[in-house]
Amino acid sequence: MLTYDIDDRGEEALYAYLYECIRADIECGAIAPGEKLPSKRKLADHLGVSVVTVEGAYRQLIAEGYVQTRPRRGYFAAKIGKSGAAASGNIAQGGTGVAGHARQAREYRFDLSRGSMPSKLFPLASWSKALRDTLTQEATATLVGEADPLGCIQLREEISNYLRQTRGLAAPPENIVVGSGAQTLYNLLIQLIGRNRRIGIEDPGYPRLTRVYQRNNVELAHLALDASGVSMAAVRTSGVDTLHITPSHQFPTGIVTSVSRRHELLGWATEAPNRYIVEDDYDCEFRLAGRPIPTLQGIDASERVIYTNTFSKSLGAAFRMAYMVLPPHLAKRYRDEMSFYSCTVPAIDQLALARFMHRGEFERHVNRLRTHARDVRDAFIATLKAGMPEGSFRISGQDAGLHFVVEFLDVDERELRQALETESVRLPSLGEFMAKPDGETNPKAQFAVQYLSLSKEEAKAAAKSIARAYARGSKGQSL
Amino acid sequence: MLTYDIDDRGEEALYAYLYECIRADIECGAIAPGEKLPSKRKLADHLGVSVVTVEGAYRQLIAEGYVQTRPRRGYFAAKIGKSGAAASGNIAQGGTGVAGHARQAREYRFDLSRGSMPSKLFPLASWSKALRDTLTQEATATLVGEADPLGCIQLREEISNYLRQTRGLAAPPENIVVGSGAQTLYNLLIQLIGRNRRIGIEDPGYPRLTRVYQRNNVELAHLALDASGVSMAAVRTSGVDTLHITPSHQFPTGIVTSVSRRHELLGWATEAPNRYIVEDDYDCEFRLAGRPIPTLQGIDASERVIYTNTFSKSLGAAFRMAYMVLPPHLAKRYRDEMSFYSCTVPAIDQLALARFMHRGEFERHVNRLRTHARDVRDAFIATLKAGMPEGSFRISGQDAGLHFVVEFLDVDERELRQALETESVRLPSLGEFMAKPDGETNPKAQFAVQYLSLSKEEAKAAAKSIARAYARGSKGQSL
Repeated sequence: MLTYDIDDRGEEALYAYLYECIRADIECGAIAPGEKLPSKRKLADHLGVSVVTVEGAYRQLIAEGYVQTRPRRGYFAAKIGKSGAAASGNIAQGGTGVAGHARQAREYRFDLSRGSMPSKLFPLASWSKALRDTLTQEATATLVGEADPLGCIQLREEISNYLRQTRGLAAPPENIVVGSGAQTLYNLLIQLIGRNRRIGIEDPGYPRLTRVYQRNNVELAHLALDASGVSMAAVRTSGVDTLHITPSHQFPTGIVTSVSRRHELLGWATEAPNRYIVEDDYDCEFRLAGRPIPTLQGIDASERVIYTNTFSKSLGAAFRMAYMVLPPHLAKRYRDEMSFYSCTVPAIDQLALARFMHRGEFERHVNRLRTHARDVRDAFIATLKAGMPEGSFRISGQDAGLHFVVEFLDVDERELRQALETESVRLPSLGEFMAKPDGETNPKAQFAVQYLSLSKEEAKAAAKSIARAYARGSKGQSL
Repeated sequence: MLTYDIDDRGEEALYAYLYECIRADIECGAIAPGEKLPSKRKLADHLGVSVVTVEGAYRQLIAEGYVQTRPRRGYFAAKIGKSGAAASGNIAQGGTGVAGHARQAREYRFDLSRGSMPSKLFPLASWSKALRDTLTQEATATLVGEADPLGCIQLREEISNYLRQTRGLAAPPENIVVGSGAQTLYNLLIQLIGRNRRIGIEDPGYPRLTRVYQRNNVELAHLALDASGVSMAAVRTSGVDTLHITPSHQFPTGIVTSVSRRHELLGWATEAPNRYIVEDDYDCEFRLAGRPIPTLQGIDASERVIYTNTFSKSLGAAFRMAYMVLPPHLAKRYRDEMSFYSCTVPAIDQLALARFMHRGEFERHVNRLRTHARDVRDAFIATLKAGMPEGSFRISGQDAGLHFVVEFLDVDERELRQALETESVRLPSLGEFMAKPDGETNPKAQFAVQYLSLSKEEAKAAAKSIARAYARGSKGQSL
């Protein structure tokens, strides 16, 4: 019978790993076309996994055409063309960083394009307890009845407390809107402030953001950065009326917007009516050193700043909870004009998260995650320093959040990238986050390192691979 | 100390009920401005409820300005103006039917504008078990890692099986997109098929739908109905390229679109490129008598029909899960162009629902709910028949789903509506669901009855109230 080393799967889901093993066997012919597969129960017993796991793997194989079912007869390997089935590899939608590039995460030994929390750090026990207590202690009507369109008051109150304590931000619950991820909130926000806008986003920046705004048919301008943040010249010449920026920790450059630039930005916002700044504070929980950076909304006296943040960074990509803090006049407009929309997060999850926060579990978890991030980052940088010639690279933006930029000197970027591919390291260059094609706008060999998903040991190994790639790609050393 | 009869709250959430009691006491002065409220623990002990309940009530009172906290001193009733606090009554967003009308559900003794499942029928035990098993048996990476943008394959597979078994619909998992409610999916759908459209919706119809499309800046046309469904003349003269209709059970008229009209509609859709029909099958689980009505998508050979359905009807408004079945070419387009959007439902909830369906719990729950609906409907209609003169009313559309239309004869609609207000019955007239103001387009005394949230006894009492209101409003009987 089919035998695979289940313990070899690393952090992958069991069913996903099993799916990949069987798929590989079908693709290479180890399982012949038309061959009968074992029943779900038999294979589960054989491998010592649950039937549900085998079921999940079989389902995916069937959905992608690798396996066929015949009523009352069982499962059979399909006849596939040499190029494999049509829709291969839907499970792990890796590479969250660069949506435009259809790279498969699992092809790489080390993937530094993924900023996601390692799943083993998810606080499963305390989250399960919060869920369980919610189900047993809340009235059923609260769990399933029509909830407040802005989100459950308990959660908004906890978020309000959290923002006051960690960000010094006065965000009353009535200004907070909860949603199923930042993307969902941006879709609602555009409907709130109106689609007839020209929105400026940072370049380089978050590629998915460009896609969200494009799909909403708003005009977009990509704005250059300088050392202090988004360039005021770019803001002024672009004719934008709305900015979407990451002032606490620019993605991907790591730039922290300076205090004077913050005031310039706020000044710009008040010069004309109807201007707004979306302050995307996506990884503020993870400032790793130095004083916390105050929010833009905290110093905005004119109700021009919309603050947004997400739980996806800290609790996993599949968690789907985010929130925005609206200026009072927009909060009122939301309540008046947008509350025909039901809140997009199930009430059970909202109430569980409120409990989780109220008990201090969220803070404890973020502290643990921050320590992990610091350890991984330090191991990575130390290994890079040990393995590379002095003065061959520069690191910036490493304290403000969960990624940093490494710039390699005296190297041909193309050769370095090729060498990284050979080493099976996925390390996106800053050019990949720019609106215009690579090369044109990013002559330097600058790369964005997102390390949170790695273990300390993996970080060391990845840094060694990068040092080897540099040695191969550096000028005057071409073999 | 504050004392309230907690058992008197009916189906309301404990904390919401407590909030209302305290608010009422503050508003009427029974609790004086500035008066200290008991501590949360003391009040909880006193009333025999949990501290969490009191906390929830206090939170809401604070959020709305009825109560103020003073550090280390406790909770105090605020000084409020005669009109009450600014933002009163955010908890129970009642009256899901008519979003435009800011009526408060709790003001009414019987509310027939709410189609929501009574929370005591929510399958709390089996849902909790499905959640628990998901948390303990699935790999953590599956629970929190980046999921498939269309939704977890396990859930899409279950939905596919369900649609085949209950609707005879062949909906392969790769064509199914899961989202946090129908509204979220419509927002995505518009981005998928393009905003530059003229969309026709039924008149009378679902008011929230108008709002969703308006907020998306698509052109709208409200289309009249005839006995067979949406009028073909209205479709043709309106110049629409997209229809959003409820063919299995029109909301609110209860009309079932005839077979010949279905073919006419499909014919219209294929006459020009880029035409689509959104088939909104929102309450198909609840056909109470007669043969099931096949879906429009099931007879669509030209990939013109987008099928949508929701779990909010069957599992509660706060459940936030819905799905759409795209025609193959749109499913491919979604995967190619829209999968930068993360699926909007948390993976834990998706996997729990997949388990819940796989175990047959969903089907059992829907069967129980259908029996409840039939009992309530029958009690309501029988009581109406017993209490009203023969031939004084007509009922239609009562078998196809969770609401029906009652038309009162020989009555002045305005007087009847006034009498219903006096009886404290919220019974929306069909005119309230029309794009144009009442009266103009709805000269008949037709009302939409949504009865699912009532118990059998409440349904009888509501019907008696209506009979009394009719007696007062009927012609020749004015007192």
